[in-house]
Amino acid sequence: MEKLKVGIIGAGRIGQVHAKSITYHIPQAEIVAISDIYVDGAKKVAEDLGIPNYYEDYHEILNNPEITAVLICSSTDTHADIAIEAAKAGKHIFCEKPVDLTIAKIKSVIDAVNEAGVKLQIGFNRRYDHNFAHIKDLANKGKIGELQTIKITSRDPEPPPISYVAVSGGIFLDMTVHDFDMARFIGGEVEEVYANAAVTVDPAIGEAGDVDTALVALKFKSGAIGVIDNCRKAVYGYDQRLEVFGKKGQASAANDTPTNVEFIDENGAVTDKPLYFFLERYMQSFTDEMTEFIDCVLNDKETKTTVYDGLEALRLGLAAKLSVKENRPVKLSEIEG
Amino acid sequence: MEKLKVGIIGAGRIGQVHAKSITYHIPQAEIVAISDIYVDGAKKVAEDLGIPNYYEDYHEILNNPEITAVLICSSTDTHADIAIEAAKAGKHIFCEKPVDLTIAKIKSVIDAVNEAGVKLQIGFNRRYDHNFAHIKDLANKGKIGELQTIKITSRDPEPPPISYVAVSGGIFLDMTVHDFDMARFIGGEVEEVYANAAVTVDPAIGEAGDVDTALVALKFKSGAIGVIDNCRKAVYGYDQRLEVFGKKGQASAANDTPTNVEFIDENGAVTDKPLYFFLERYMQSFTDEMTEFIDCVLNDKETKTTVYDGLEALRLGLAAKLSVKENRPVKLSEIEG
Amino acid sequence: MEKLKVGIIGAGRIGQVHAKSITYHIPQAEIVAISDIYVDGAKKVAEDLGIPNYYEDYHEILNNPEITAVLICSSTDTHADIAIEAAKAGKHIFCEKPVDLTIAKIKSVIDAVNEAGVKLQIGFNRRYDHNFAHIKDLANKGKIGELQTIKITSRDPEPPPISYVAVSGGIFLDMTVHDFDMARFIGGEVEEVYANAAVTVDPAIGEAGDVDTALVALKFKSGAIGVIDNCRKAVYGYDQRLEVFGKKGQASAANDTPTNVEFIDENGAVTDKPLYFFLERYMQSFTDEMTEFIDCVLNDKETKTTVYDGLEALRLGLAAKLSVKENRPVKLSEIEG
Amino acid sequence: MEKLKVGIIGAGRIGQVHAKSITYHIPQAEIVAISDIYVDGAKKVAEDLGIPNYYEDYHEILNNPEITAVLICSSTDTHADIAIEAAKAGKHIFCEKPVDLTIAKIKSVIDAVNEAGVKLQIGFNRRYDHNFAHIKDLANKGKIGELQTIKITSRDPEPPPISYVAVSGGIFLDMTVHDFDMARFIGGEVEEVYANAAVTVDPAIGEAGDVDTALVALKFKSGAIGVIDNCRKAVYGYDQRLEVFGKKGQASAANDTPTNVEFIDENGAVTDKPLYFFLERYMQSFTDEMTEFIDCVLNDKETKTTVYDGLEALRLGLAAKLSVKENRPVKLSEIEG
Repeated sequence: MEKLKVGIIGAGRIGQVHAKSITYHIPQAEIVAISDIYVDGAKKVAEDLGIPNYYEDYHEILNNPEITAVLICSSTDTHADIAIEAAKAGKHIFCEKPVDLTIAKIKSVIDAVNEAGVKLQIGFNRRYDHNFAHIKDLANKGKIGELQTIKITSRDPEPPPISYVAVSGGIFLDMTVHDFDMARFIGGEVEEVYANAAVTVDPAIGEAGDVDTALVALKFKSGAIGVIDNCRKAVYGYDQRLEVFGKKGQASAANDTPTNVEFIDENGAVTDKPLYFFLERYMQSFTDEMTEFIDCVLNDKETKTTVYDGLEALRLGLAAKLSVKENRPVKLSEIEG
Repeated sequence: MEKLKVGIIGAGRIGQVHAKSITYHIPQAEIVAISDIYVDGAKKVAEDLGIPNYYEDYHEILNNPEITAVLICSSTDTHADIAIEAAKAGKHIFCEKPVDLTIAKIKSVIDAVNEAGVKLQIGFNRRYDHNFAHIKDLANKGKIGELQTIKITSRDPEPPPISYVAVSGGIFLDMTVHDFDMARFIGGEVEEVYANAAVTVDPAIGEAGDVDTALVALKFKSGAIGVIDNCRKAVYGYDQRLEVFGKKGQASAANDTPTNVEFIDENGAVTDKPLYFFLERYMQSFTDEMTEFIDCVLNDKETKTTVYDGLEALRLGLAAKLSVKENRPVKLSEIEG
Repeated sequence: MEKLKVGIIGAGRIGQVHAKSITYHIPQAEIVAISDIYVDGAKKVAEDLGIPNYYEDYHEILNNPEITAVLICSSTDTHADIAIEAAKAGKHIFCEKPVDLTIAKIKSVIDAVNEAGVKLQIGFNRRYDHNFAHIKDLANKGKIGELQTIKITSRDPEPPPISYVAVSGGIFLDMTVHDFDMARFIGGEVEEVYANAAVTVDPAIGEAGDVDTALVALKFKSGAIGVIDNCRKAVYGYDQRLEVFGKKGQASAANDTPTNVEFIDENGAVTDKPLYFFLERYMQSFTDEMTEFIDCVLNDKETKTTVYDGLEALRLGLAAKLSVKENRPVKLSEIEG
Repeated sequence: MEKLKVGIIGAGRIGQVHAKSITYHIPQAEIVAISDIYVDGAKKVAEDLGIPNYYEDYHEILNNPEITAVLICSSTDTHADIAIEAAKAGKHIFCEKPVDLTIAKIKSVIDAVNEAGVKLQIGFNRRYDHNFAHIKDLANKGKIGELQTIKITSRDPEPPPISYVAVSGGIFLDMTVHDFDMARFIGGEVEEVYANAAVTVDPAIGEAGDVDTALVALKFKSGAIGVIDNCRKAVYGYDQRLEVFGKKGQASAANDTPTNVEFIDENGAVTDKPLYFFLERYMQSFTDEMTEFIDCVLNDKETKTTVYDGLEALRLGLAAKLSVKENRPVKLSEIEG
């Protein structure tokens, strides 16, 4: 079996997730090299997983002719530039989200990818989650019928550090962006966005210029309506639910939990909290998105989650920001695309 | 509309339940009189519900030619004798369970009822419970297929007073008798019984000659197998479940709860305990069994829960007692029938 | 025991519900008379329930000095005028919702009630639903903590006739009005409303000038945010859910179902649909609201659901209508109050 | 880090499961060699997973001084002999269940292991299942209180081939043996067994001298009572549940399912069937038991699941067989031990 030769740029948390997925679960690929500006991090991952090369400079990966595809897992601000370089080097690209926080940069990536004729898949892993993928499948099969209302709940167990909040682009670009992609995954293109936002978790988040609790109302081009509700902190953990209501029925995904045990005593019946955070809840989806990327490259298929999806999620985030700023519904067409 | 004229013998807890059911929910019947050896109790119920007559002596009910049917809600030891008298008086009879704790007495009742040509319905109200009746309906419709395993869980929130335990006939005649009837309702006739029993709740129950925790294995004539598990006390309340497994599927009934609210916090997700005890859990079933009895009398239909069902439940209870005593499976044919 | 003497104006569906509640479940009150412009309807209810008087003209109820309280269950357009007359006649008033579709009329009722010093309770029965009342109780006890997000789902099993839609005042005044009251019941006063609306169920509803699917985003004065989603038709039945998220936890109410039976076979595990419609789902709440009204009158307590609550729910509905019309968030202060 | 050097004997389904667990998930161990009498099978696994050596003859593993521990994953009839040889060769042993179908052979293994002073862990993987381990943990912490009733449901999605049934030792040694171990894991030692058994799935199983549906009642030495219900076929899939009732509460484990999605339409609310069979349901437990074994060897800890546990499970199976044969409860003391 021909194996896809892969290089990983960035050996942090998500880079390690992908490195383990490929090493342990995807026999169709092998990792030839890993790089990180903290080269000791790259070295450790390489040693643990038997990756033959590690570098400080990602250009060594781009210049390696043996490598067919790269995974861009570096810090967000470097995604677009590296992607453009990788495209020029003729590498297929798996790029972590977000591609960039500006539309112009993303369009440069789109241009570079188109010119080079390489594939680029965005790491919107939630599309590969067992629950959400099953709902998408029910919708595709026509079980739900014409969609009417799409509801997404997405809450984190803990807010990020205030230092991160300040550079994150704000809740809509940092957190809701995944939910915008889920909204488009299920409901198709969005026409208009209205966002309610508040600071209810931590005043320091407000002082940093952001909000921590939000409700985004959506009008889809199809005529369906949608709502996303976010919070930076839920005391009971990572709350990730989806409810899709249509003319033939409703599909809803409850949270995943560590066990299916119920304990009942005089205080009531107690079951588990959700799995703690994204690494626990979405672990399988990271493997599944990578498996699909590798299959697309090896077998020359279209990727289902493209840089265009990254662009549209960003535009929805910008529309939500504008909606809060001006306290009015914002048409997506108002946002450069 | 012709209304059925009813007399109630016994104005205690269950007599009041039936009196209210008829007054408030069954327009096809009216209560003409109520009696109780504590006549003040009968008087109070009569006044509260607008019943025109109350008596100390139930013979006044039996002698009232206006009355077509009687409900026997007096103490267990009087059921059989009153039923025989009522039959001789030509009254249709609704009799609370158990009819009696001896087979001979029950057979006298059967003879009296047959001779008089009156109807007698036994108050096995659980057959009318919304959950269990729905499972029976699924079985009747063939959804479950040929039955293979029937499992009944039946636990009380609190044991009865020790003084009651001593005269109750023991757990198998007092508590399991309802479950034996449920087993027969779902699975048909039983061939053999084996009972495991223990004292785990209160040593005083053991000292009173009884057990408080039991497991009864059943062989049905159909070839199916069954199990009943009982306990005199569950700290979380009244546990009443049924699980019926067959070649085409399984139906199971969870407990009913006061609300469908879930509260989740860092300690997990909490839902309600079951409804507290039989008056809460089975209230609707008391009305439904009475509605059926009145319909049977008014429209000359066969009652579905007869004195024969009372006899068979008693025989199963006696078989279970013998099984524990001799620590062996007991064929139902060993018990006089 | 002194019984409250009650007259019922309107013998239609909801009038009958209240008549039965009082007759069967509320011994502290008795119905002296019932009226309906279709006098045969009043006559039938009177005969069935043993109500001594029935009238065509409700003035006979208002003029009856024996009657202390009236229930206004006539058609919506008559509520306000009858309420004013009743107040002037010194009767305490239970008035079905909505009081009126105009603010001016409701204010006249408020004036009349205040002048006469009588009590007026509005029939927002959902506040008395076992699930929602339990969530309110959890909130009151501080279990949920400071409220952050309130989500209400409210869908009907079938749309009303088009003829009704045309005169209903529109979905926000007719259907969402209950959800606005629930939002205020849980979250307190609302500051701003934004409504998304669509016609997805039946084009004829759009032709009648209404919408059938809606999403209303709320900003509460407390800083919490909320969302209501409505649809005139859910194929699986009456969908009535509430989710209240706060800093200490989340409480959510699932739908009530006819049974708690699960049937599992090779196609999956199947449980019941929700109870069909409001008479099934909210039956107990109708009794409970009436019990409270009667208690308030008998014992001179404040009613918890006042005509002011009716006014505020109407204003929220009008704000939602304006929001859709002008496609912008609308401050409640823009609506006359 | 010192890695434990492991050899695997048997490259069939379960041997592959363990080989993958160690390769992908247990960095503390490495597989030095794998053997199988079908040497091509061993070769393929070795190549896929990068195992340096493969053999036809397991003696090459036993004779390899580099290897510290062996996994015995060959056919059941060879387990005991290989285990004895391995012990004599000074290897620590992980042995798949059952060790043997005769008590004498298991006792020889116990003797050999004791003499050699090596560790032997039995592959009762269900003890490591997330749900059951959580219940055990609740019991250990005293949450459940003194145990009163233990109920185990264990049904397969499909019966094995009749050819296998004929040599399997019968349902109690082949299938219930896992449940007997679970019963002991939770409830401690058993004193008496009574088994009800029937052929309800396939008459061919009866013709092969076995039964396919069973109910085993247990008396524990502690005074608790228990019941296991088995069936060779459930149309809805692999049914693996546990319910533990005690004086302070009840813990129960529901089945695991592929997703947590509910779809509701006019036919009701549908959720997933259980995960198909043991490889899906118990995959993580295979990794977890192996992790513990490797930890025990590396750090000289006692294994928690010993050959004694294998012996006791076998004795319970033999007691159940005798119970069915003689239709009576059988004391475990009647079975050689």
